[in-house]
Amino acid sequence: MSSNKKARTQPSYELVYWPGIPGRGEFIRLAFEAAGVSYKDVANESKDGIKSVTSLIAQESTGDSDGNPPAFAPPALRIPGEGRNGKALVIYQTPSILSYLGDKIGLAGNDEAEKAWILSHTLTALDLNNEAHDTHHPVAVSKYYEDQKEESLKRATDFRENRIPKFLGFFERVLKGNQEQGKGKYLVGDKLSYADTTLWHVLSGLEFAFPQEIKAIKGDYDLLFGAFYDSVKEQNGLKEYLASDRRQPFSMGIFRHYPELDRQ
Amino acid sequence: MSSNKKARTQPSYELVYWPGIPGRGEFIRLAFEAAGVSYKDVANESKDGIKSVTSLIAQESTGDSDGNPPAFAPPALRIPGEGRNGKALVIYQTPSILSYLGDKIGLAGNDEAEKAWILSHTLTALDLNNEAHDTHHPVAVSKYYEDQKEESLKRATDFRENRIPKFLGFFERVLKGNQEQGKGKYLVGDKLSYADTTLWHVLSGLEFAFPQEIKAIKGDYDLLFGAFYDSVKEQNGLKEYLASDRRQPFSMGIFRHYPELDRQ
Repeated sequence: MSSNKKARTQPSYELVYWPGIPGRGEFIRLAFEAAGVSYKDVANESKDGIKSVTSLIAQESTGDSDGNPPAFAPPALRIPGEGRNGKALVIYQTPSILSYLGDKIGLAGNDEAEKAWILSHTLTALDLNNEAHDTHHPVAVSKYYEDQKEESLKRATDFRENRIPKFLGFFERVLKGNQEQGKGKYLVGDKLSYADTTLWHVLSGLEFAFPQEIKAIKGDYDLLFGAFYDSVKEQNGLKEYLASDRRQPFSMGIFRHYPELDRQ
Repeated sequence: MSSNKKARTQPSYELVYWPGIPGRGEFIRLAFEAAGVSYKDVANESKDGIKSVTSLIAQESTGDSDGNPPAFAPPALRIPGEGRNGKALVIYQTPSILSYLGDKIGLAGNDEAEKAWILSHTLTALDLNNEAHDTHHPVAVSKYYEDQKEESLKRATDFRENRIPKFLGFFERVLKGNQEQGKGKYLVGDKLSYADTTLWHVLSGLEFAFPQEIKAIKGDYDLLFGAFYDSVKEQNGLKEYLASDRRQPFSMGIFRHYPELDRQ
């Protein structure tokens, strides 16, 4: 858990997510770390914290005793004191959590337009994240990769040949269009937003999952793999986090390195 | 284009989306129609309106002359006068548009908690929408269904057996947890939100694409296919819209009826 001077002015934030993997929880962690705002990563920090995850998504739940609705899947953000009648507020869905948090922790832009664009670009980066996942699970999330390997080879080929260039080309253009203000370092305006941390993590995941592919094409995206990538990871807060053991390594989550799915 | 007394107090909204299909544009249309707020459906209402779509997503664009970033894909919402220096504001990504609009047109709940939950549930309904799409395009969006039919049969089976029950069971529980306030008619609080209109359209699409499947299981979801489904389509504004020729029929978009993908 990071903590600094800003922490005292913030409510206590609890991230409810599976332990041991970056997963979709990482998008929330990066926002907190970049903002220098303290949070509790419940399942990674306490022995039976995983119960907070399993009870969040219990198949019979119609909501919690604080008046929050059930959650479809983790991550969720729990904020004691911010719900109804001084109870805890619970929000699920990564973009919804980031949209709520962005305002509070100063990562959501300077005005209404920037706020909207930051959410839009974040959703697009998360679409890319989901498509990266589907390269190893094109048929069913409930089945093993090994049972859908043939389909994965086809989907990964299309992903590498068509989808990665489409998404990366788009974000390169966003950076270029905002270059006067953002200097290639920020997607929107002249400071870091949760769209930047989100896209950064997805790029980092793609480099892990498809190292040959990214190596071959990164030269086509000067800003994205230059000023942008380098600047985000050197941000105060993020730099320390990325060097710490709180940063979980990629393994068998959304981003997986199957050499046969990469460029040959 | 709908118009009524509320229209005069609202800016002029322009929906930029492909003509002739409901698609993702429909989620925006339903919000406007339910709120009774006037909008221009550019590509459906003007002869060369489709140019507004193609220029929106032009592959070389770094943004428009009003200072808006490029858009990854339609739909986009254009709002003359609401951008910087009195220029037009352009927002893309369905959930981002709905989140922005929800506040302005009264479909985003009564407080900060409801606002967050409405966005969360909307994102979940749109995930279901995307998974429905992927049943006929599990390998590549750029290829024909006929070229990925074998994989589609597998993916559709998993979608029907595992994913539909998971999503519908979740929304049934949301309705149940909110029954005291929502009477089974609203996902959040005691009035219609854009989460309701979004989920309603997805249910309607599932009935079109998988009629046998939905017929067989709808009895398991009393609130969802009872109070909720019936009440949303009878809402003022929506009822008139759904009976009008502005409502585009499902055909070969996200929701497609391939009998071989349905329950046999």
